[in-house]
Amino acid sequence: MEVRPRLLTPGPVELHPKARAALVAPQVHHRTAVARERFTRARALLAEAFRTQGEVLILTGSGTAAMEALATNLFAPGERVYVPVLGKFSERWAEIAKSAGLEVVRRGLEWGRVLVPESLEADLRAYGPVSGVLLTHSETSTGALNDVRVLAEVVRRVQPQALVVIDAVTSLLVSPLELDAWGIDAAASGSQKGLMCPPGLAFAALGPRALARLRPRGYYLNLERELKAQRTGESAYTPAINLVLAAEAVLEEVVPRLEAHLALKAEQHERLYALGAELGLKPVPERRSAATAAFWLPEGVRYPEVREAFARRGAVIAGGQGPLKGRIFRVSLMGYFDRYDTEAVLALVRAALVEVLRA
Amino acid sequence: MEVRPRLLTPGPVELHPKARAALVAPQVHHRTAVARERFTRARALLAEAFRTQGEVLILTGSGTAAMEALATNLFAPGERVYVPVLGKFSERWAEIAKSAGLEVVRRGLEWGRVLVPESLEADLRAYGPVSGVLLTHSETSTGALNDVRVLAEVVRRVQPQALVVIDAVTSLLVSPLELDAWGIDAAASGSQKGLMCPPGLAFAALGPRALARLRPRGYYLNLERELKAQRTGESAYTPAINLVLAAEAVLEEVVPRLEAHLALKAEQHERLYALGAELGLKPVPERRSAATAAFWLPEGVRYPEVREAFARRGAVIAGGQGPLKGRIFRVSLMGYFDRYDTEAVLALVRAALVEVLRA
Repeated sequence: MEVRPRLLTPGPVELHPKARAALVAPQVHHRTAVARERFTRARALLAEAFRTQGEVLILTGSGTAAMEALATNLFAPGERVYVPVLGKFSERWAEIAKSAGLEVVRRGLEWGRVLVPESLEADLRAYGPVSGVLLTHSETSTGALNDVRVLAEVVRRVQPQALVVIDAVTSLLVSPLELDAWGIDAAASGSQKGLMCPPGLAFAALGPRALARLRPRGYYLNLERELKAQRTGESAYTPAINLVLAAEAVLEEVVPRLEAHLALKAEQHERLYALGAELGLKPVPERRSAATAAFWLPEGVRYPEVREAFARRGAVIAGGQGPLKGRIFRVSLMGYFDRYDTEAVLALVRAALVEVLRA
Repeated sequence: MEVRPRLLTPGPVELHPKARAALVAPQVHHRTAVARERFTRARALLAEAFRTQGEVLILTGSGTAAMEALATNLFAPGERVYVPVLGKFSERWAEIAKSAGLEVVRRGLEWGRVLVPESLEADLRAYGPVSGVLLTHSETSTGALNDVRVLAEVVRRVQPQALVVIDAVTSLLVSPLELDAWGIDAAASGSQKGLMCPPGLAFAALGPRALARLRPRGYYLNLERELKAQRTGESAYTPAINLVLAAEAVLEEVVPRLEAHLALKAEQHERLYALGAELGLKPVPERRSAATAAFWLPEGVRYPEVREAFARRGAVIAGGQGPLKGRIFRVSLMGYFDRYDTEAVLALVRAALVEVLRA
């Protein structure tokens, strides 16, 4: 019996050893000096990871909580936001914006595609002024990476008043990302992806323009309350402090050597795609994210066969979601895989795929 | 240097050994058979702990998230709710209800007091129909325990249409609580109190009448979405699955022997109060909760002296909040303290208090 399946899934992921070590530490009370110090340190390291001079708020919740907090705290009901939809998580932006009472200007694209700057510019000119543009950096459901740098440039040029807000759930610590330098005003992320921690924390990064335009709403996801509390090293409500300590421990390790870390993530996923190409598999995304490789299932191969070939090797992968269910499969090395693990897991992926494709 | 201060605080608390063991297990993906099975088991055990035939939803967030979810999903904006305020957490009910757009009929009481049935009945008759009554079972800021059983009886008799919703954050698995039998429609709780797990999970218990009156609102805290997902063993958004597994492990241990467990909790806090009485300390609450003992600081004793007397013995206690700051101190054995620990910690509390009172 396999008691320890490895996660080749795009979140939750294999934990960083520093996260595991932090989780076994004795329970800490969040209103003590040591907790305040490490909470504050985690926030500073996250701001460094997001590359912003603004502030990062740590919320107890899943990434969706941070997305909703940004939608409700940066825009008032009735305001218009532009949302390109090209997968499950960009669809979620549209749903959240609608639930927040915003008027959604939606641009639908085929799943797997990315938004190109020319379309964005044409849309912004055609639809007129919007208060915000909600983008998905890495669309986990398709493995596509939107070039938020050039997209933000377009927004800044064509509609400088609009806030650029991104879902960075599977790009933070996975793909290059620079909020301030790229003109991105706010971003949402979570703990169970590039941070290699358990799920349970959401991050809301606010650049200077977003901080100046906060219009707090709600109670639990009220970012003004959080800002006030977190500037003192605490949080408005009891935080998942064990997870904060795990996050801080991993950030201490990864942030000072972020470039090398991102290079490893890029290399791991390039090698997955190279392996797929060698075996004749076609990639799903038009532009590839390092969060997950996504391949079309070849003619005659059913998803459960692929899943089982990995399961027999003690590994869990992901299938397709929404319209891609039963049509694609996804393999992710977003979790903790050091040099040795990388070689081992790539050999395992090869063996599983060769078996499936031969059958 | 003390590297392992013990938590004599009313949450977070000392972890149950089963929780600690679950936390060191390898990362589990929430969309796998084993996760679904244990998630479902945790929900069933929670329903047993709340004593309801309804449903318990597990949310990733702090207890406040569950309180807000109940306020927004059970009542529509403009509806009237009655809220007695007698401490920090009952004040929070009033704030949350207001933030949810409800009309709050507020009854202010001195902190430390409880709501007596005669006052509730008089108020309900005087103020006319309300859609709900939001009660705090154990008011952690004062150590007071409202008799929600008799209060719910009054509501049922005087205004049968009103939903009775309680904050059970520090009463679940600490004090006797029976949702269905007592006529309580819904309750909120969290993982870092009587459950002896880390913070990060919130529980929303919905009895049959509450289930029938759900009026979902919002996105992240939308209970209809959660209900639909959780009936399949999953959750609407990525859950803090590591904490769910820890909760399930502790519930397996505690729920089958709940009576003995509640008797131990009652005994521990009675002994704390007996010790206080022996040393001439005056209790704060009019009616005592087993979640925390709370004492007035004697004349001439400042809170930091008490805190330091415990700190020198490697233990963390809690002071007063709001208007009670600097006037009371709180010692809680809500966390994991078995028979041996109980004797040891009571001896420690005695030593610390004797030192302070002699100084």
